[in-house]
Order: sequence, then C-alpha cells, then structure tokens
Amino acid sequence: MEAFTSYAPILGAGGLIIALIIYLGVVSKPSGSGLMVEIANEIHAGAMVYLKRQYSILFFVIAAIAVLIWFVPSLGPGTAIAYVSGALCSVVAGYFGMMSATKANVRTAEAANRYKPNAAKALSVAFNGGAVMGLSVTSIGLIGIGIFFFYLNYGTPATAYEINGFAMGASSIALFMRVGGGIYTKTADVGADLVGKIEAGIPEDDPRNPGVIADNVGDNVGDVAGLGADLFESYVSSIVATIALGATAVAGSQIAKLGSSSTLMILPITIAVMGFLASLIGIFSMRVLEKFNPAAALRYSTFIAAGLFLIFAYFACSAMDVSNSVFWTIFVGSLGGISIGLLTEYYTAASPIRRIAESSKTGAGTNIITGLAVGLESTALPVLAICVIIFIASRIAGLYGIGIAAVGMLGTIGVTMSVDAYGPIADNAGGISEMAGLGEDTRRITDSLDALGNTTAAIGKGFAIGSAALTALALFSAYTQSITAKTGKEFVIVLTDPIVVIGLLIGGVIPFFIGALTMTSVGKAAMKMVEEIRRQFREIPGLLEGKEGVKGDTKKCVDISTSAALKEMVLPGIVAIFAPVLVGFLLGPKALGGMLAGATVTGVLLALMMANAGGAWDNAKKYIEQGHYGGKGSDVHMAAVVGDTVGDPFKDTSGPSMNILIKLMSIVSLVIAPLLV
Amino acid sequence: MEAFTSYAPILGAGGLIIALIIYLGVVSKPSGSGLMVEIANEIHAGAMVYLKRQYSILFFVIAAIAVLIWFVPSLGPGTAIAYVSGALCSVVAGYFGMMSATKANVRTAEAANRYKPNAAKALSVAFNGGAVMGLSVTSIGLIGIGIFFFYLNYGTPATAYEINGFAMGASSIALFMRVGGGIYTKTADVGADLVGKIEAGIPEDDPRNPGVIADNVGDNVGDVAGLGADLFESYVSSIVATIALGATAVAGSQIAKLGSSSTLMILPITIAVMGFLASLIGIFSMRVLEKFNPAAALRYSTFIAAGLFLIFAYFACSAMDVSNSVFWTIFVGSLGGISIGLLTEYYTAASPIRRIAESSKTGAGTNIITGLAVGLESTALPVLAICVIIFIASRIAGLYGIGIAAVGMLGTIGVTMSVDAYGPIADNAGGISEMAGLGEDTRRITDSLDALGNTTAAIGKGFAIGSAALTALALFSAYTQSITAKTGKEFVIVLTDPIVVIGLLIGGVIPFFIGALTMTSVGKAAMKMVEEIRRQFREIPGLLEGKEGVKGDTKKCVDISTSAALKEMVLPGIVAIFAPVLVGFLLGPKALGGMLAGATVTGVLLALMMANAGGAWDNAKKYIEQGHYGGKGSDVHMAAVVGDTVGDPFKDTSGPSMNILIKLMSIVSLVIAPLLV
Repeated sequence: MEAFTSYAPILGAGGLIIALIIYLGVVSKPSGSGLMVEIANEIHAGAMVYLKRQYSILFFVIAAIAVLIWFVPSLGPGTAIAYVSGALCSVVAGYFGMMSATKANVRTAEAANRYKPNAAKALSVAFNGGAVMGLSVTSIGLIGIGIFFFYLNYGTPATAYEINGFAMGASSIALFMRVGGGIYTKTADVGADLVGKIEAGIPEDDPRNPGVIADNVGDNVGDVAGLGADLFESYVSSIVATIALGATAVAGSQIAKLGSSSTLMILPITIAVMGFLASLIGIFSMRVLEKFNPAAALRYSTFIAAGLFLIFAYFACSAMDVSNSVFWTIFVGSLGGISIGLLTEYYTAASPIRRIAESSKTGAGTNIITGLAVGLESTALPVLAICVIIFIASRIAGLYGIGIAAVGMLGTIGVTMSVDAYGPIADNAGGISEMAGLGEDTRRITDSLDALGNTTAAIGKGFAIGSAALTALALFSAYTQSITAKTGKEFVIVLTDPIVVIGLLIGGVIPFFIGALTMTSVGKAAMKMVEEIRRQFREIPGLLEGKEGVKGDTKKCVDISTSAALKEMVLPGIVAIFAPVLVGFLLGPKALGGMLAGATVTGVLLALMMANAGGAWDNAKKYIEQGHYGGKGSDVHMAAVVGDTVGDPFKDTSGPSMNILIKLMSIVSLVIAPLLV
Repeated sequence: MEAFTSYAPILGAGGLIIALIIYLGVVSKPSGSGLMVEIANEIHAGAMVYLKRQYSILFFVIAAIAVLIWFVPSLGPGTAIAYVSGALCSVVAGYFGMMSATKANVRTAEAANRYKPNAAKALSVAFNGGAVMGLSVTSIGLIGIGIFFFYLNYGTPATAYEINGFAMGASSIALFMRVGGGIYTKTADVGADLVGKIEAGIPEDDPRNPGVIADNVGDNVGDVAGLGADLFESYVSSIVATIALGATAVAGSQIAKLGSSSTLMILPITIAVMGFLASLIGIFSMRVLEKFNPAAALRYSTFIAAGLFLIFAYFACSAMDVSNSVFWTIFVGSLGGISIGLLTEYYTAASPIRRIAESSKTGAGTNIITGLAVGLESTALPVLAICVIIFIASRIAGLYGIGIAAVGMLGTIGVTMSVDAYGPIADNAGGISEMAGLGEDTRRITDSLDALGNTTAAIGKGFAIGSAALTALALFSAYTQSITAKTGKEFVIVLTDPIVVIGLLIGGVIPFFIGALTMTSVGKAAMKMVEEIRRQFREIPGLLEGKEGVKGDTKKCVDISTSAALKEMVLPGIVAIFAPVLVGFLLGPKALGGMLAGATVTGVLLALMMANAGGAWDNAKKYIEQGHYGGKGSDVHMAAVVGDTVGDPFKDTSGPSMNILIKLMSIVSLVIAPLLV
C-alpha cells in the first residue's frame, strides 16, 4: 500500500487528464445565441482581468515571503521552493476551475433553454463544469504533496518540514483569493441589488442594471476561484498537518502503538488517494443519477463516494502496518463531516428560516435580530459535533487521531467540491438567461438548479468549517510537537500562565478584527457601486426605461469591484501572516500557542455564525418570494431583502475567510516554530 | 490598616445612612403637576409589580440551589447561608436603587421645567437619585463581605471558601436580573418604537402610544435594577476572587514575597474601603461641580474619585505588610479601566458613528453591515488594553496581581455607578416631560441630560467588561489553585490536551448560545408588543388621533413585557449555572478549566462587540436626527432607526448578560471545585 501511495503524483496526473476530457466535453456543448455568447464573453473577460491583476499582485507577495524564507537559517531554500510550489499549485487549480466555470455557465443556460422543461441536460453541463474544478483541486494536491513527500526527499522529518512550506503557500494564496473574491462578489451583488431590486424595482440580473455583469463575474471569482483555493488549502493542510504529527510522533507514546512513524506519515496520503478514487466514481455516477431528480442526484453521488471511500479506507488501513483502530478515526471524521453539513442545512432550510420570515412582518429590525439570533444559535450543535469527533479520535489515536479525522472528513472533497462549484455555474446560467431574455420557462429551470446550489453550498460550508477546526487543532499540535522535538524537552502550554491567557485573548480578537475589515470593505465598496449605478441611471437617458440599443457602462462597475477587491484584500492577508510572527517573537512560543487556540475557537464560531445566518437570511427571503407573508414586493419582502443584504458579506466574504485565517496562522506558526526556541 | 479594614461593615452601614439622607433629599423635591405624578406613579407601580414577581420566582430558584449546597458534603450550611446572604444583599441593593430612581425621575422633570433653561437643578436631582444606588451597592457589598470575612470566621481559607458562596449568590441574582431586566426593557422599547416611531410616525414617548409606560418602566428595571445587581456582583466577585487567590497562595512562590497569605486576603477589602471613601468624596464633589457644564461635572467627579482612590490605596499599601509593588497593579487596573472606558466612548461617539450614519445613505442593509463592522472592530483595542493590564499585573504579582488589578479597576465603582444610574433617570424624566406635555424647552434639558447619560453608560460598560475579564480570570485561577490545594499536587491544564480543547470549544460556544437565547426572547416578545399596540391603535377609536380623554391600555403592554422577561430569563440562567456542573462532572476538572477560559474569551469579545455596536447605532441615529444627511424623517434616518432597533437588544440585553455569565460560570466552578477531585 505504501508503494501504491507513492504513485500519488501519477494518479493525480491521470485525474488532470480526466478533468481535461470533461472540460472538452463541456466546451463541445452548444453555447446559444449571439447575445448569449456576447454576455458570456463579457463575464469571462471580467473574470480573467480580475485574475490577471490578482495574480500579478500575489506574485510579489509570494516572492517576497519566499525570499524571506530562503534566507532564514532554519528554513532555507527547500521550504522556500515548497512554499512557491504550494502557491503555484493553488493558482493553477483555481485557474482551471474558473476557465471551466466561465465556459459551462452559458452552455448550462443553453441546455436549459433547448431541453426545457427537462432539467437533466442543464444539470449535467453545470455539474461537469464543477467537476473540472473538483478533479483539478484533488489531482494537483496529490501531485504536489506526492512529489514533495516521495521524490524530493523520502519520508524523513526534514521533508515533512518542507511540506509545511507547501501548505503555507497554498494557505497564503487561499486567504487572498477568498478575501479578494469575497469582497469582489459581494460588492457587486449588494451594490447591484440595492439600486436594482430595492430602488429601481427591476428584477435581479435585469440587463438594464449596469452592475449585473460585475455580479456574475463575482460568482466566478468568489464562489469558484475563491472556493477552489479555499478547498485546495483545506485538502493540503489537513494532509500536511497529519504528516507533521506522524513525523514528530514520539516513540513509546500512544502513537507508537498505532504504527511506525514513517507509516503514519504516509497514511494521510494513502487515505487521500482512496478518497480521490472514490470521488472519481462518485463523479461518474452522475451520468446515471442525472436522470433522476437533480437534488437526489447530487446527494446520492456524494453518498456513493463517501460509502466507497470508507470501504477503500478500511482496506487500505488493513493492508498497512497500522493499528486497525485508526480506521475508526477516519470513519468518525467522515461521518462527523456529513453531520455538520446536515446541521448547516437545517439552519438554512427548515424552521429557522420560517422564524426569520415571520419576524420580517414587523420590519427589517426584527428580521435582523432574529437572523443574528439564528446565526448565534446555529453554532452550538456543530461545535458539539466537532467536540465528539475530537473526543473519539483522540481517545483512539491521540493528537494524530484529530489530524487523520480531518483527512477523513475531506476524503471525498473531489465530489463535494464538484457539487459545490456547480452552484455558481447554475447561478450564472440564470443570470445569462435573464439578460438574454430566454423567457420564464428557461429561467425556472436555472432558478431551481440555483436554489439547489444554495443548499449544497450550505452543506459544503459545514464541511469546510468542521475540517478547518480539526486541521487547525492538528496544526496547533504539530506546532507544539515541533518545538518539543527541537528543544528536546516537552513543550507544555499551561492555561493558567498569564502569557498564555494574553495569547488566547489576542488570538480570540483576530477573527473579530478580520471580520471587521472584510465587512467594512464590502460596505464601503458597495456604496461606491451604488453611487455609480445611480449615476448611470440618472445620466444615461433611456437606460432605466430599457430603450432599445441603450447600454449601461458595465465595465465601470466591473472595475469598481476589481479595484476594491484587490486593494482591500491586502491588510487582512498581512495581519494573518504577520500576527503569529509578531506574537511569536515578542511574547514567545507559549503566547503564540495560546493565540492559535484562541483564534481557532472564535474563528470557528464566527465562521459558523456568519455562514448560517447569511444562508438563513437568503433562504428566508426566498421563502417569502415563494408567496408567503405577502410575497414579492410586499413590505415583509422588503424587510427580508435587508437581511439578505447583510447576510451576503457574512456568508460569502467574512465567514469563509475565517477558515483559512485560522489555518494560515497555524501553518505560519508551524513554519516559524524552529526559530522561536 | 488590617484593624481599620475590619470596620468595613460599620463603614458600609454609615454609607447606607448617607444614602438614606440623599434619598430623603430627593423625595423632598417637588414632583410637579397632577398628571406628572400620575404618570410617575404608573411607572413606579409597573416597576414594583415586575420586581415583586421577579423576586418571588428568584426566591424558589435561590432556595432550591441553597438546599442543594447545604446537603453537599464538601460545601455544607456555611456556604449555603453565604449564598443566600449574597443573593439577599443583591436584592436589597437593587430595591433601594429602584425606589430612588422611580422617585427621582419625575422630580428631575419638574426641576428641568421649573428652572429652565438652567439644567443644573435637574442634573442634581438625577445624579442624587443615581447616587443612592451607587452608595447602596458599595455599602451593602462592604457589609456583606466584611461580616463574612471578619466576623463569621476570621480570615482562614475556610471562610474564604464560604465567601465564594456569597459571590455565587450575588452572581445568580445578577444574571436573572440582567437578563430579565434586559428583555423587559428592550421588548418595550423595540415594540413601542417599531409601531410608534416607524409605522404611526409619532414621536418617542408620545402619550398616545400605549407601549410608552412599559418603555419607561423598562428603563428602571433594566438600566437601574439590572445594572445595580450587575455591578454589585462585579464588586463582590472581584474582591472574593482576590481573597481566594490570597488564601490559596502557596508559600515560597512569588506570592510569598508580596506578603503573608492573611494580609493578601485582607488587602482587596482594604482597597475596596479606600475606593468607597474616595467615591463618597467624589459624590459630594458634585455639589460644587454641578454649577459647571453637566458633562464636565460628571467627568470630573469620576476623575476626582479616581485620583483620591489611588492616593488612599498607595498609603494603605504602605501601611500594610505587603510589597509596595502591589500598589502598581492597582494603579494599572484603575488606569486600564479608564482607558477601556475612553475607548468605548470613542467607538460610540466619534468617527465610527459618522461612518455608520454615512452608510445609512444607501439604506438599512449597509447601515447594519457598517454597524456590525464597527462592533467587531471595536473589540481589538480594549482587548489589547486588557492584555497589557494582565501582562503588567501578573509580572508584578502573579495571578494574584490580576485579581487585585480588577479590584483596583472597580475601586471607585461608588461614583461611576452613580453616574451610570443617573442615565436612566434622565431618560425617564424626558419620557415624563413628553407625556405630561411640559413643552420643548423642558424636553431640551432632559434630552441633553439623557444624551450625556448615553455617553456615561458607554464608559460604564467598558469598565464592567474590563473588570469582568480580569475577575473571570482571577476566579479561573482560584479554581485551579483550589483543586491544587485539595489534591496536594499541582493541577495543570495543558492546552494541547484534547479534553481541554473540547472544554475550550464548549466554553466558547456558550456565550453565543446565551446571546441567541436573549436575542430571540427580545425578538419574539417585541413582536407581541407590536401586535398589541397595533391592535389598540386599530380598535380604540380616537387613540391614534390623540382625542381628549382617550387612553390606551398601558397595563396590557406592561404585562407583555413583564411576562416575557420572567419567562425568558429562566433558560439562560439555568444554562449558566448548570453548564459548569455538567462539564465538570462528565468531562472532569480539566475540561471545566478549558471551558472557563473559552467562555471568558468569547464572552468578553461578544460583550464588547454588542455594547459598542449597539451604542454606535444609537448615536449614529441621534447624529442624523441632529440634521445630518437629511435629518429626522428622511430615508437615511429610517435606515438608521433599523440599526438602532437591532442595537437595542445588543447593548442592553445580550451584551451585558455576557459579563455576568462568564463570572457566574467561574464562581460556580470555584464552588464545586472540591467535589470534582
């Protein structure tokens, strides 16, 4: 099994080829009328301009940090190269996903239009568009980790160390992509909605609204490219954290009974390979499943992959020289992930959204109060689920168990991510069909696929947060073990030590601060967007009336989003990277340990709270639009739109940043650990 | 000095006599026209009905817990009696404050009316009304702690142990009073505003609005009685935590160098006595200061008291057999408290509120986004200030330093609380003058006094949160030391222990959960209030038109608030008391330690975030009402009113509950500590 695992890069290369074949399949589908192609090209171009500018900024950030790493004595060229490689892999995976998504969107709209009222073809195109992303992320992850682990320096702790750099590269890119993409998409979304839906009273995605193209570009740069970088980072970090825990496993401890250090280091990669194979089958099972109801198809493909993954993982554990009990930590992680996803789905779908809708009867104030309450409340059960996973996994396999549970939770990320990336493609297809005037029937299909995407996105967010909590804890443990290994005596962080308490408080406040920065960015940029759209409606005669041939200046709106995103992503990124460095060097490694724990606790809580409140507000608004409490255009609906507006940056900007934030800080700490003693 | 300190109960009795004299002075002032007296009586009666029903529920809760404590082997009758005494003292202090406030309100209105445009007399009545509360709380605190410490069993650790019960009694009452009072006041406020100001377009406190009496009762039960119980608890807990740290001080440790254990146990009481004397002078200095500008008068009385307190404390430390360096922890605590207060003032007064006002131009959605961002951001600097205090205090005097810094921060609570309690009295006076139609000029005076009250309340909240953080940490340390003392070997909570991480996560989630419960309660109850007021406007002919002789059913509205508060306060109270018991017995003392740390971190952050966001929203609305961005009645103003509505439960219900929550959980843990090993 160890030998088989060492083929991971080759399997990854195979995955990329399959992704290419799926991509060519998507591109071969018809892309509709000239107007549709024109709109799609505008979206594609906007997304590419953003990516290009984003990458050129990131080039300097990554290069600067790489140089820093290169010249630091205990880190050196190996880690620097790994760091750049991790960043590069993330960029490539995100680029592939985005290319695919911006081709699939218009073809999904055309499939919906051509085969209406049958949604199966449209579902298939959208899902395949997402699958390119899902496969790219996992394949490139296996290639990168596989090469660094097996071929650049076989399985010694030194390699494990360089692999930390790989994860740090992936994390750095992820934070910038998530924050930048999140600001972009919500600036456009909030701005376009505030003027279009609320003030001008025109529908979403109406072609008269000059902010609509930016809004659709935003779906791609935020929900596709941002998501891709995010999940690539989760995937890589969980594996790397577990390798680090295996590498520093102290002989004679509980870990020793689980298996040899080198086997324990290989195991997370083996499990990832098993998950990759299971995901491939899950993705292909859609060819059969897509004939059924779309919701069931997406759900079953995930379940099939998860079931197969557990079977494969069981046999892999049996074939390797590790205690069989390790399998059960993987099992707990995988099941726990699904539970957290279902809890998230509950809070954004069932009685909580009716509570919010009901409270909108007395206005926007009570809508917001109830939504915030739902968000706060929704943290409790997922956190308890995380606690149960930690309890069982650590009972079975100590701290290593927490890491391998995270790998188990993310095992089938290939398929969950395909499902996740399908959402924004369907959303874009809806936008294109509205702008191109494909009519009610087509729009109904894309709307239903889009609504489904909201649910799958909610589940995906649950997975992302749960795994982030476990990964951050595993990285935190790896950090302390790394210091222990370096100094040769046990590094103990005692909770009553005042310096640890200070670290805990500083760590706790950082997610609040990053949340403030990102919310402020969206608020400010959305106001600029609103003013620009108002100006165009005012100054361009015939635009609001929809006069033939009159077009808004969509480029200006795209530019506002792009500039805001690129400008505003810098500070959060710098805080995340340099806060651990500052605390570590000024207050010492114990304070830094406290800080990681504090950041993990509040980061996970804020992430859950923001994601769930945002999703619940969105769906409460949709619930009212279905005709409850007066339906669209009523005062109740207006109140619910306010909640949805607030929820937008919650669920798509600030919330998702938290996951990466806590992991990035943990990885930076792990990388600088040897310098602190 | 030790002998002098043992007179604390007698000094406290003297303080109560002075409070009585001030009270009689307030009552002797004229209370205005028949209509004014009628309104005031209605408010007074509503408040008393609520208190009576509140106390009769609390009687059973306290009795049940006391019986439990009585029969638990390691606790026993001593602790049970102390527990009941602590609860009783809190009730008495709150009752005195409320009696005084509901007499002072109408007399403040009359003084404003009679001496307009001179505000000095009205300021004097309102301040004296608040001073009764300030003096009662500190006096009764000194009486209770003094008797238990010095006279029921002189200065042995056993006594210290029973004193924990006293603090737990005070905390139990505080949580129920804060949560109940907070729900009451915001149910009435939000409900009355939503229908009155937004729907019917009538001014605040308009006599046609049947919810207005409930709103004014709410100021008393929430901002006076709730605040009183809250600060009584802060005062007592900080002293008790420091006594406990002194009692368990291990000989030979850093503490030994500071002084003997018995001296270190007496010191916090001595410091409290010094603060009490300084506060008395501060309160009396108002007789001179009130001739100046009201804002300056309130500020200087606080500064005079703080300055004197530090001088007294310096001499007290010199006269006692403790290291002189201990004084500097008191100094840091006192100065740190003022800094946190000023930071809070900044976030609720300066550029942040202009940012929120500006963002209201694009509607309620951006108003909420910006307000939440301001709230999140406002946590950073106060938390850093807390970290600096912890750092310096613990460097000087270890964990004991953290406790004594908290005592220092709360030293002048007698005067800060007088200033704090002045706010709701001025608010009520405004309500009465509006309802009794005393005219614009009178209302202008009460409005200016009320606005000032908002600022002082913000500063008071900063103090409360800062001291809560330090006190919770001190109690947490006392908890671990108590287990160490019981088992005879050092009790170490290691942050990488999975069970500690689980505790940390559970603890972190509890403030979120309590926040959800309290927000939900206000949301639900406010909706009921809205429906009732709407019904009355609809069904009582002539009410909305203000027809002579037509009166709304104000009792019904008072009843809705009362029932909601009493019903909804139970669950949060039970969670706070039983969560530590459950975690302690099921997961063990280490998990419980982790839980206390986690709850302290997120509790402090949420408390700051909610208090500051709420205050900022409120003041942003006031800023617009002053004529900016279109002023009252404009769309921008409407958007700001939504923010204010959301901020109401933030700053007056959920936020203030956090402080007590984290201390109550810590005290419960300290009390049950001996049972866990």
